[in-house]
Amino acid sequence: MSRHTHQPGNTLERKQIRFNAFEMNTLSQSSHGLWSHPRSRAVDYTELDYWVELAQLLERGKFDGLFLADVLGVYDVYGGSAEAAVRAGAQVPINDPLIPISAMAHATKHLGFVVTSNTSYEPPFLFARRMSTLDHLTRGRIAWNIVTGFLESAARAMGRREQFPHDLRYDVADDYMTVLYKLLEGSWDDAAVLRDKAGRRYADPARVRAARHDGRYYQVDAIHLSEPSPQRTPVLFQAGSSARGQRFAGEHAECVFVNGKSMAAIAEKVTAIRAAAAQAGRSPDSVKIFTGMCIVVDRTPAAARDKLADYQRYIDWEGELAHFSASTGVDFARLDLDDPIVHQSNQANRSALEGVTVKSQEGAWTKRDVIERMRVGGRGPVIVGSPEQVADALEDWVDTTGVDGFNLSRTVAHEGYRDIVDLVVPELQARARYQTDYRSGTLREKLTGGPARLQAPHPAARHRFKAD
Amino acid sequence: MSRHTHQPGNTLERKQIRFNAFEMNTLSQSSHGLWSHPRSRAVDYTELDYWVELAQLLERGKFDGLFLADVLGVYDVYGGSAEAAVRAGAQVPINDPLIPISAMAHATKHLGFVVTSNTSYEPPFLFARRMSTLDHLTRGRIAWNIVTGFLESAARAMGRREQFPHDLRYDVADDYMTVLYKLLEGSWDDAAVLRDKAGRRYADPARVRAARHDGRYYQVDAIHLSEPSPQRTPVLFQAGSSARGQRFAGEHAECVFVNGKSMAAIAEKVTAIRAAAAQAGRSPDSVKIFTGMCIVVDRTPAAARDKLADYQRYIDWEGELAHFSASTGVDFARLDLDDPIVHQSNQANRSALEGVTVKSQEGAWTKRDVIERMRVGGRGPVIVGSPEQVADALEDWVDTTGVDGFNLSRTVAHEGYRDIVDLVVPELQARARYQTDYRSGTLREKLTGGPARLQAPHPAARHRFKAD
Repeated sequence: MSRHTHQPGNTLERKQIRFNAFEMNTLSQSSHGLWSHPRSRAVDYTELDYWVELAQLLERGKFDGLFLADVLGVYDVYGGSAEAAVRAGAQVPINDPLIPISAMAHATKHLGFVVTSNTSYEPPFLFARRMSTLDHLTRGRIAWNIVTGFLESAARAMGRREQFPHDLRYDVADDYMTVLYKLLEGSWDDAAVLRDKAGRRYADPARVRAARHDGRYYQVDAIHLSEPSPQRTPVLFQAGSSARGQRFAGEHAECVFVNGKSMAAIAEKVTAIRAAAAQAGRSPDSVKIFTGMCIVVDRTPAAARDKLADYQRYIDWEGELAHFSASTGVDFARLDLDDPIVHQSNQANRSALEGVTVKSQEGAWTKRDVIERMRVGGRGPVIVGSPEQVADALEDWVDTTGVDGFNLSRTVAHEGYRDIVDLVVPELQARARYQTDYRSGTLREKLTGGPARLQAPHPAARHRFKAD
Repeated sequence: MSRHTHQPGNTLERKQIRFNAFEMNTLSQSSHGLWSHPRSRAVDYTELDYWVELAQLLERGKFDGLFLADVLGVYDVYGGSAEAAVRAGAQVPINDPLIPISAMAHATKHLGFVVTSNTSYEPPFLFARRMSTLDHLTRGRIAWNIVTGFLESAARAMGRREQFPHDLRYDVADDYMTVLYKLLEGSWDDAAVLRDKAGRRYADPARVRAARHDGRYYQVDAIHLSEPSPQRTPVLFQAGSSARGQRFAGEHAECVFVNGKSMAAIAEKVTAIRAAAAQAGRSPDSVKIFTGMCIVVDRTPAAARDKLADYQRYIDWEGELAHFSASTGVDFARLDLDDPIVHQSNQANRSALEGVTVKSQEGAWTKRDVIERMRVGGRGPVIVGSPEQVADALEDWVDTTGVDGFNLSRTVAHEGYRDIVDLVVPELQARARYQTDYRSGTLREKLTGGPARLQAPHPAARHRFKAD
C-alpha cells in the first residue's frame, strides 16, 4: 500500500510527474556491459525496428519524449587510448541521432523527440533547416538538446588542435542561438505562406526576408530555407551544470536535464536554475527540470532486488571507468586500486566528480571505492522495488527537489522500459500523478499547456518577423 | 504494337533500363507551377505520409532509387532578388533531404535513397557518420549525390563573402573524398566487431584505429564513430558536367546524372564520362549513367497529349525564369521580350545554357524564345504518348546514347509517377527491358551485380583497413 494516500482534492495541487527515456543511438550509453545480458536487444541498435518498437512502447507509456543524447568523439582518457571504450562498446560505436527520428515519428502520434546537437561543430544555417524539417515531419514534436561539447577527441575529429575553452564555448553558443532565432522566427511571417493555387502564389515575397546576422562567431545573410513549422524554434533542452551553463539555461532553456546522486544535490540545482531563469527575466516555473534516474522494478520487492542482482552481474567495470575517466579527466588506468583520486587541472567536467571526495579532503576516495560503487545506473541514483515502492520514491524526489520529472536511463533494452510502462506508469496514474492521455498539439503545448511558439520574455520572441 | 519486337535471344544482350525518381524535399523542383494543379499533392511535402506513399509507389514500380536533389540557397539572380522564386515556390521553401529517409526505409525493403550533400559546407566527420547511420538503418540502401554547390546565396548563408571558384571547389571535394574514404573504409576492420556477449567484448580495439588526414583543406584525427555498415562508402552519384566535374566523376562516381535536350548531346556526355573513368584506370562500364527525363503517359496517344496540354496550363513562366536565371547567371528580368540572350562572365553554370544560341552567334535566342519553350519538364526532353510510344522512345534513348537509365522528374505529385509505374513499367517488363524483381542485397549489389563494397581500382579501396 502506498504511503501517499491523499484526499482527492489534494491531488489537484500536486505536480504531474513526467518521463523521458534517456537514450542514445548506440550499443551502450550507460550501465556499460548490460548489452551482454541475454535478454538485451541492444546489439540491434543499427536496425530501424529496434527504434520504432521503442518509440511505440514509450508512447504506450505516455512518455513525453525520447531523449537522444550524443557525443562526437570517443572516450580516450583512460590509459590514454580508446581501447577500453571500444572493447566495452562504451558509447562507441555511436550513430547519428537525427536519422531514425522520421521512422519513429511515422509510427507514433504524440511522443516527442529530443535530439542533441553541438553548437561548436554544426553549421547553424544547415542545422536550422534540419530542425525545421523535423518539426514539419513530426508535426511539431521536436526538441533540441543544446550541447557545447567537452571532448578533445571531438575537436581533433573536426580538424581542430583543441576545443575552445569552456566559457568561450558558451559565448559561441549564445551567438549560435541568435542566428537560429533569426532564421527560425524572423525570416518568414506567419502569413507568408499563401498556398494560393488559383493565383499561383505559394508565398508572399513581402513576408519573407533574409535573416541577417554579423556576430562575433557567426555571420549569415540568407532566407531560411524552410517555411514556418508548427513550433518554429524546437523545444529547447539544455544540461549544462557550470555557472556559465546555468546562466545559458536561464536565458534559453525550456527544459533542463540535471544529474546528481542525492535529493539535496538536485534540489540545489533546481533552485539555481530557477534563479537563473528569474535573473534572465523569465518565470522560474517556465523551465521544466528533469533529473536522471535509473529504475529497476518488478511485481514484488524481492523480484525487483533479484532482477537488479541479475543485471548487476553484467556490469563491465572497465567500460564504466573508461567513461568516467572521459567525464572527469582523471585517468583511472594510471591509478592503483588504493591510490586516492586527485583533481586534474585540465579536467573535462568537474561536476562529474560530484560525490567523490578527492585528495585535498579527508577520506579521499580510492579507485577501489569508485569500482565498488559501480552498478546499474552508473553513478546516478537507482530506485529498485515494487511498483508502489518506485512510485513512492519518485513522488518523494519530485516533492522534495522540485523537479518536474525524470530522464530514465536504459537498463536491459527494451525490457527495462517495458517494466516501467507496464508497472510504474499505471501506479502513478492511479495516484493521479501521471498523465492518462496526451494533451493535443505540439510538444511545447503538451509540456507547457501554452501556445506552440515561444513567447516573450523568451529571447526567441524578440526575433519574430516584423513588417517593415 | 511496339516497333521493337525482338527475338527472345536478342533481348538478353540488350541493357535493362533503370529508373530513379528525380525528386527534392520541396514544393516544386521543376515544372514550376504544377503544384497548383488540382490533382497535385505537392503542398503535402511537409507530411511524412506524402513521402512514405511515394516510396511505396516507387518500390511497387521496381525503381532503383529515389534521388533527392538539394540546394542550399534561394534563386535570387532574376530581378536581383528572391521574390519571383518565393512567389512561385520554385525550390523555396526546401527542406532537408536526409530527414524523411528513415520513415521511407521502414516502409520499403528494396528502394534505394540517393541523398544530395554539399562538400563545401557539411563537415566531413559529421557527414560520414550520417551516411553510415543511414546505411545501417536502410540495410545498405543509401547513395550520396556529391555536389560542390553553385549558388552565391548559399555561400552568404554559410557566412562566406562568396563561394570558392569552380575548380577549387573540386579540389576541396577531392580532399573531402579522401577524408570520407579513410573514415568509412579505413577506421574499422571487417573483423573489428565481435559482439562477444560471453567475453564482454563488443569490438576488438586492435582492429579499430583513428583515421588520420592532414590535407590542404581538411584535417582529421579520429576513430570513425559508426561501426562498419553494409556498403561502407555509400553508392557515389555525381552530376558535374564541366571538364573538371567529369574528371572528378571519372575518379569517384559509380553513377552519373547527366542532362541534355538531345540524344546527340547525351551521347557525347556518355562518351566523355566513360573516357574519364578509363583515364582514372577504371572500367568505362563501371559507371552507370542516368539522364534526366520527363514522361507524360496515358493509355492512348490522344489521352497523353490531352494530359500534357492540361498540365501545361499550370506552368508558371516566371517561376521557371527565376530558376533558369539562377542556373545560367542571366538575369532575365532585365531583358525585354525581344532582347537577345548574352553570356554573363560570372555565369553560374554555362552548361545550363545548352541549346540556347546566345548573342555572339547567328539567330541568337530572345527572352521570348525561352518563354515560348517553357513547358512541363522544364528545358529537358519530354516523352509523351501511350505506354508503347513511351517504351519505344526510352529504348531509343538507351540504345542510341549508351545511358543506363533515367532520372524521371516529377509532374503532378504523385499521379505522374503512378502513371509510369502502372503503364510504362509493365510495357518495358513485357519487352524484357526492365527488372521484374529486385536483386537481393545492398543498393550497390542491386545496381552492379557485384559485391556490397567498393573494389579496386576505385580509390575507396585503397583506404581499407590494413593490419599493422
